[in-house]
Amino acid sequence: MREHEFLQALHFNAIRGQDGRMVNMSVPIVLSVGDAQRRAIQADGATRVALVDERDRPIAVLSDIEIYKHNKEERVARTWGTTAPGLPYVEEAITNAGDWLVGGDLEVIEPIKYNDGLDQYRLSPAQLREEFARRNADAVFAFQLRNPVHNGHALLMTDTRKRLLEMGYKNPVLLLHPLGGFTKADDVPLSWRMKQHEKVLEEGVLNPESTVVAIFPSPMHYAGPTEVQWHAKARINAGANFYIVGRDPAGMSHPTEKRDLYDADHGKKVLSMAPGLERLNILPFKVAAYDTKQKKMDFFDPSRKDDFLFISGTKMRTLAKNRESPPDGFMCPGGWKVLVEYYDSLVPSEGSSKLREPVAA
Amino acid sequence: MREHEFLQALHFNAIRGQDGRMVNMSVPIVLSVGDAQRRAIQADGATRVALVDERDRPIAVLSDIEIYKHNKEERVARTWGTTAPGLPYVEEAITNAGDWLVGGDLEVIEPIKYNDGLDQYRLSPAQLREEFARRNADAVFAFQLRNPVHNGHALLMTDTRKRLLEMGYKNPVLLLHPLGGFTKADDVPLSWRMKQHEKVLEEGVLNPESTVVAIFPSPMHYAGPTEVQWHAKARINAGANFYIVGRDPAGMSHPTEKRDLYDADHGKKVLSMAPGLERLNILPFKVAAYDTKQKKMDFFDPSRKDDFLFISGTKMRTLAKNRESPPDGFMCPGGWKVLVEYYDSLVPSEGSSKLREPVAA
Repeated sequence: MREHEFLQALHFNAIRGQDGRMVNMSVPIVLSVGDAQRRAIQADGATRVALVDERDRPIAVLSDIEIYKHNKEERVARTWGTTAPGLPYVEEAITNAGDWLVGGDLEVIEPIKYNDGLDQYRLSPAQLREEFARRNADAVFAFQLRNPVHNGHALLMTDTRKRLLEMGYKNPVLLLHPLGGFTKADDVPLSWRMKQHEKVLEEGVLNPESTVVAIFPSPMHYAGPTEVQWHAKARINAGANFYIVGRDPAGMSHPTEKRDLYDADHGKKVLSMAPGLERLNILPFKVAAYDTKQKKMDFFDPSRKDDFLFISGTKMRTLAKNRESPPDGFMCPGGWKVLVEYYDSLVPSEGSSKLREPVAA
Repeated sequence: MREHEFLQALHFNAIRGQDGRMVNMSVPIVLSVGDAQRRAIQADGATRVALVDERDRPIAVLSDIEIYKHNKEERVARTWGTTAPGLPYVEEAITNAGDWLVGGDLEVIEPIKYNDGLDQYRLSPAQLREEFARRNADAVFAFQLRNPVHNGHALLMTDTRKRLLEMGYKNPVLLLHPLGGFTKADDVPLSWRMKQHEKVLEEGVLNPESTVVAIFPSPMHYAGPTEVQWHAKARINAGANFYIVGRDPAGMSHPTEKRDLYDADHGKKVLSMAPGLERLNILPFKVAAYDTKQKKMDFFDPSRKDDFLFISGTKMRTLAKNRESPPDGFMCPGGWKVLVEYYDSLVPSEGSSKLREPVAA
C-alpha cells in the first residue's frame, strides 16, 4: 500500500477507487523496511525494488515506490482498538518490523508456491471464480474458518445450502475457505486442518459436489470487527455473494484484561454497515450445540436448553490432547482421528525432553 | 448517538444516512451513565430520559432510548490512535465517565444558554447560514482556531479572501470560528480569546464587513486527523464551502514520547480523502512568519529564509507572561494588551500563594 491507501484503511476501513466508489479495505497490507534498507534504496535513487524469496530469487517487482513512516502504535490502535501487549499478530509481524513502509505498484512475476504439498488448494480469486463458473454455481456462500470442522459447522453449511435452494437458487456452492497464514500457537496448524477437512468431505459430512475447498492465504489478525470486513471482502472478490458470520468473528480474549476483546455482536453489526460491502448478503450464524437427547449436533433450542451441551474449542482441544473421544456425532470419526494424531505428534518422544510445538507460544 | 452510529463513527469516520449517502462523523458524540443510573432507568422501564442542567431543569429529552456498553479503551484507541495516558480530553471527559452509553432521539427544549456574556456569539448552524444569506455571501471560508489571532493568521485570511475574489466570487465572507469548549490548561481561555478577537476586528486587522465571528461550542479533542474532519464537517454544516487547513491540525505532542502525536501532513491528507466530505474545498494553509527586514508578518520566502523569525505559540505565551512585547507587527497592539492582561490575572495576588489558573494542569 501507498501512504494514501494506508491512511484510508486505518481511518475509513475503505479506499476510494478512481471511479469515486469506496472499496472496502480494513486491514493495511504493507511492506516494512528498516533504516538500513531505506538508506540503501534511497542512496541508489531506486524507483523500483525487487521482492525476493528466502533464496533471494525475485518473485515480484514494486515500481514507482514511495517510502513513508510506519507508525506502529497508531496502526495497532486503529486496527485492534487496543495497544495492550500480547496481540498475537502484532507480536509476530509488527513489533519488530521496520520503521518505514514501502508502497508502490506491485507486479508478481509468477504465482507464489509454498511447496508444502498444499499448493493445489491455493487458488487465486480469479481461479476460484472460474471454478464456480465451471460448476455452474448460481450462488456462492463462503465460510471462513481456522479450526477443524465439527458437525455443528457442517449442519450450518448444509442448512445454508437448503435455505438458498428454498430462495430459488438452483445450484448454491459452498466455498470452504480455511485461513492459511499465521495463526496463534494454540490453533491447529494448517496442514493438519487440511487433512481434517479432507476427511469431512470423504466421509460425506459435506457434499464434495457442492463444496470447493481452498486456502485463504491471509494471516490471522484477531482484529474482530475490523478483520471480519477483510474476511468478507476477500471472499466477495473470489466470487462469493453470501457470507456466513457468527458471534465474535476474528475475536479473542483481551490480552491483559479478563474479558473478550470485542463485543460478540460488533463483528456482524460493523460488517453490515461497512462501506464498500453494500451488496454483501450476510447470513447470520445459527448457534449449534450437542443435543444429548438426539446424540447429534443440532441448532440450539432454548425451549429445552438443558438437553444441549456446548463444546468449546478449548474443550475440543483438551479432549483430543488426552486422546479422549467427544460425544458420538460431534465430529466424523476420520476427522477426529486426525486431531488426535496431531496432538500425539506434539507429545515429547521418549528420550527427548523437547516439546515439538509447531509455533512458539 | 445510538450504538450503530457510535460504531460507524469509530470504524468508518462516517455514518450512512437513510438515503444511503455517507455523512462524515469522525468523533463520537455520546452520553455516558454509570451502573446506578443505568439500573435506575431500566428499573423504571423508561423509554425516555430528560437531560437536565446543573440546576436540575430539563433542557432536552432523549426518546426511544437504548443503553449500550462504553468501551473506553476501544473508543480512545480508534479516535486518537494511541491509548497513552495524558490525552487531555480523555482525562477530562472519558476516563472517569460511566461504563454505559445512552442513545436515542434528541429533542432540545430551547437553545442552550451559558450566561457567560458570550451567548450572542453562540450561533447555531441555521443561524450562521441565515447570517451568510443576509450578507449576500457567495463564498464562505472557515478558519478554526483556539489561539489568539496574530497578524500571520490575519494575513492568511485576508489573502484567502483575495484569492476567492480572483476566482470570481463577488462577496467571500470569513467565518472566524474559535472553539468554545474544553481546551488544555496552557491554551488561553475562551473569554480572553474573544476579547482579543474583538480587538483584531476593532483595529481593522480583519474587516468586520466580511467577517462573521461566532463560537464553535465543541470541546477540543486534540485528535489530529480524526478531529480535523469534525472541524471541517461542522463548518460545512454551518454554510462554509471553503476550509483552511494548516500543518498538524488538532495535533499535540505525544503524551509520553518525545515526538508529535501525528504526522504534520496526515491531517490535510486524511481530510482530503474523507467520506462524506467530497464537496469540501480545502485551502492549504500557507506558512507565515515574522519578516525581520520588513518588520511584519509575511508568507515565508525560502529564498531569504534567514530574514524570517518563527514565533511559536509557546514563545508568544512566554513573552506575554513576562509582559514583554513581541516584535512590531506581530499582533495588533490592542490584541496583545488583552493577552498581557490575561497572564497578569494569573499572577498570584500579594498575600496569596495560590495560583489562579483557570484550568487545572
